[in-house]
Amino acid sequence: MRRWNGWGEESVFQKVNPIAFEYLQAHVGLAKTSHSLTFDELIALVPSSRLTQHELLACCDMTCDAKDRALHAVGQSLPDWIGLRMGLIERFPDAVAYPKSAQEIRTLLDLASEHDIRLIPYGGGTSVVGHLTVPDSLQPVVTVDMRRMNQLLHFDPMEQLATFEAGISGPEIEDCLQARGYTLGHYPQSFEYSTLGGWVATRSAGQYSLGYGRMDSLFVGGRLETPAGSFVLKPIPASAAGPDLRQTVLGSEGRLGIITECTVKVSRLPKQERVHAAFFKDAETALTAVRELAQADLHMTMIRLSLAAETETTLALASHQKVLSFVKLGLSLWGVKDQKCLLLYGVAGSTDAVSQGLLSARRIIKQQGGIFVGQKFGEEWKKARFQSPYLRNTLWEAGYAIDTLETSVIWSKVKTTIAAIEDALKNAARLQQEQVHVFTHVSHVYAVGSSIYTTYVFRLADTADATLARWQTLKSAASQAIVEQGGTISHQHGVGLDHRPYLEVEKGELWLQMLRAVAKTVDPKGLMNPGKLME
Amino acid sequence: MRRWNGWGEESVFQKVNPIAFEYLQAHVGLAKTSHSLTFDELIALVPSSRLTQHELLACCDMTCDAKDRALHAVGQSLPDWIGLRMGLIERFPDAVAYPKSAQEIRTLLDLASEHDIRLIPYGGGTSVVGHLTVPDSLQPVVTVDMRRMNQLLHFDPMEQLATFEAGISGPEIEDCLQARGYTLGHYPQSFEYSTLGGWVATRSAGQYSLGYGRMDSLFVGGRLETPAGSFVLKPIPASAAGPDLRQTVLGSEGRLGIITECTVKVSRLPKQERVHAAFFKDAETALTAVRELAQADLHMTMIRLSLAAETETTLALASHQKVLSFVKLGLSLWGVKDQKCLLLYGVAGSTDAVSQGLLSARRIIKQQGGIFVGQKFGEEWKKARFQSPYLRNTLWEAGYAIDTLETSVIWSKVKTTIAAIEDALKNAARLQQEQVHVFTHVSHVYAVGSSIYTTYVFRLADTADATLARWQTLKSAASQAIVEQGGTISHQHGVGLDHRPYLEVEKGELWLQMLRAVAKTVDPKGLMNPGKLME
Repeated sequence: MRRWNGWGEESVFQKVNPIAFEYLQAHVGLAKTSHSLTFDELIALVPSSRLTQHELLACCDMTCDAKDRALHAVGQSLPDWIGLRMGLIERFPDAVAYPKSAQEIRTLLDLASEHDIRLIPYGGGTSVVGHLTVPDSLQPVVTVDMRRMNQLLHFDPMEQLATFEAGISGPEIEDCLQARGYTLGHYPQSFEYSTLGGWVATRSAGQYSLGYGRMDSLFVGGRLETPAGSFVLKPIPASAAGPDLRQTVLGSEGRLGIITECTVKVSRLPKQERVHAAFFKDAETALTAVRELAQADLHMTMIRLSLAAETETTLALASHQKVLSFVKLGLSLWGVKDQKCLLLYGVAGSTDAVSQGLLSARRIIKQQGGIFVGQKFGEEWKKARFQSPYLRNTLWEAGYAIDTLETSVIWSKVKTTIAAIEDALKNAARLQQEQVHVFTHVSHVYAVGSSIYTTYVFRLADTADATLARWQTLKSAASQAIVEQGGTISHQHGVGLDHRPYLEVEKGELWLQMLRAVAKTVDPKGLMNPGKLME
Repeated sequence: MRRWNGWGEESVFQKVNPIAFEYLQAHVGLAKTSHSLTFDELIALVPSSRLTQHELLACCDMTCDAKDRALHAVGQSLPDWIGLRMGLIERFPDAVAYPKSAQEIRTLLDLASEHDIRLIPYGGGTSVVGHLTVPDSLQPVVTVDMRRMNQLLHFDPMEQLATFEAGISGPEIEDCLQARGYTLGHYPQSFEYSTLGGWVATRSAGQYSLGYGRMDSLFVGGRLETPAGSFVLKPIPASAAGPDLRQTVLGSEGRLGIITECTVKVSRLPKQERVHAAFFKDAETALTAVRELAQADLHMTMIRLSLAAETETTLALASHQKVLSFVKLGLSLWGVKDQKCLLLYGVAGSTDAVSQGLLSARRIIKQQGGIFVGQKFGEEWKKARFQSPYLRNTLWEAGYAIDTLETSVIWSKVKTTIAAIEDALKNAARLQQEQVHVFTHVSHVYAVGSSIYTTYVFRLADTADATLARWQTLKSAASQAIVEQGGTISHQHGVGLDHRPYLEVEKGELWLQMLRAVAKTVDPKGLMNPGKLME
């Protein structure tokens, strides 16, 4: 069963070894075990619904049950966790709808227009930026759970296109395609729960996007039900017939309507797939190698470079400490010491293409002094690729909060942006007389630049409000640093509520005006996910 | 000097051999040599300007000179040619502006807003769909020639990005980049004259877009001056921060403002570049091979498959008939006869990558029974790649009009769409008791489908009006067929005036409403290129 107040399945508990806790204490300070709300305590917070007895309830199996409303009130952002674990949830939806078809959604939208009801689309509930927060609205709010719409509608191997209902989850998509010899190849960290419609609405990127493409390019067509009517995007390979408004549905975050159907590009399952690893003596040589790999066009599926602090943290958290001390000893003999950076790189395709790709990659790595260490680290990463969010549960219970920040910048700004983000976090913590442990990797590389992914760990405060304030100070310092460096406020998480304040600096006032004009056209009453993405 | 009433340089005349004329006569009928207007006769058509003495004239070296106005009145569409050659130009701009900087353009836009002046951005003047047509407006119209803004502003080999002023032409871009060891790799048929800003405004595709990408992906950032202010798109590798409005500037066709600056992805010049050729016995096997090549991801730069009628026409028009008769004889011994289709395919990259790519391609071609015929056809194509538009001059003078149509569809619709377009043209000609010679190639292939490019030749009528009516009947029959098949009304030419009537069937009413809302936001008075793309 899925955990109601944290990440993942209740049956899975990610242990942390004592050495790792010592490491954390040394970097962040001693933490106190935090008490978490019980589910009954959460339910007690749910107020009465404004929709009891409403005629809308006949539509989409809608319910005002407190349990359903509690389970759909938040996502997975840090403020969401503080809400769930410490009882700081301000509002709950008045009802939850469970549509089974686009037709039902059409009816729901028409009724919502008529009765002035606000709607929040809900996919896997994995947003980390506040997409699911219930707005402070005089009008009732219904959260629309899309998970019952999870069917494959059309698949044509010849044209390598598949059409799914939007509520289908990552594993359901891959089960369906892999049985036919195909894959979508889209693996965001939230893969196990997040949905295709959610990926489109937030312009999702996955661990293998270097090989298969981001949602921006995988999403070829589909259907968006808007309050003003249906918006159908036909699958067309490429077009010069005016602006591409498909790219406006992508990233619309529920503001334009509800995505009901998506046609996506699929690929033949690769014959082979390998993830190899190498160590570099410092960030300078490692980043040069990564840029050259990105620009060499080698059919790679992934590149992930952990900078020194992340490499050290990864090694400290690993369970097989004995093996690792040998690795460290070996590396130090090659001059790879404290500042070492771990590179994971993946190649997939035919057996020939994989050997060729790995060979070319290794040549570039060697030129920059990288030490090849084989498949072991890559295999470990593949096994554990969806497990790291489980650490949030374990650390929270030990009194630590863990959160991540991400952006992308052109190559000339990668190093300075990493430093700016890390410094901003450390300075913001220092001003609060706290410590923060910060580490970064670059991944999702492009010919012209790279994404930057920073993780930070800090101690929970004694109260919900104080913890939230501590997070807000850290988050806002880092976000400010990102936009000042010319980075995007989000490379893969979306905007939601948490990134909204930084959007105008990134995009400019005209961008917001244009987008508001589009939203006004399809949703004149402002029913759709109010307040997310833009005010 | 550039030809004022046709394509290309005045010094270049593309001869057509007598066999080719016989071939045309057999397929289209005997034509009468057509009289063309002289330049003086054209100038005599230019009315007085509504801007003489206007204070606007102080801006951007603006001129009301009849010669400048005549030379900026039309583009290269068939109606444009009828206008220039037969004197059917209804309106001329009141003035032509020649800005030298984004600042001058800002001033021009502010003055235009103040005085309610309509503006038409003009790049290389190569539009084939009526982008440059002067609207029937009570307000004065100024055409804005961007060719003085042709400088490289920034180049960083590390991040493989170059920023140019928007008025720079194809050859100027390549001179600039190739001297530095780089290339943009964008070669539309209009390469010699068309401009970067024009490519972005019309979502251009080039002959090598399979390898280097369409403008959609090459254009990373830039600057659009709109009546409401400056819209700056920062170069960011990838972003999940809301909808991608860069994709709304792409394809904006002058309706949102004037593009003044473009940052584009560039690539290292490939070590090697090869174009090889093969023949197939019929469309069925050839199209299967092309789809498999497109889906195999082989680092190819181009794939161009001429179907039977185009292959026959190409061979008839070629000058070296003796060599060809040997080729035909050889092919017929392999069973490749009347329905034969010529495939050209290009690979570029390192010497290794090219050998590897050619080898893999040849394997796929062989599996479908394709007969490899070496480099000769590819070399001929490379030499003549920008010469075929010159044929328009030669044929027009002999009494024939030649025009092209293009779309793209998913793989399952390629064959039926080709047939529908060709049949529509033939039936429309038959109803006028005329013949039309029609032939098609597929190129710009994608994993999920392909573009379709159809050329048609018909006889000029005795008068301008009758010729225009003949073209309109053919064009509209074929365009109708395209949208009925679910194709886009343009894969690479844009919408302009000629494709506007078909846009609503393709995109739907909501698409148009959203786009109008965006245009209204940045250009509330409707000053920018009125009537193009949408009413």
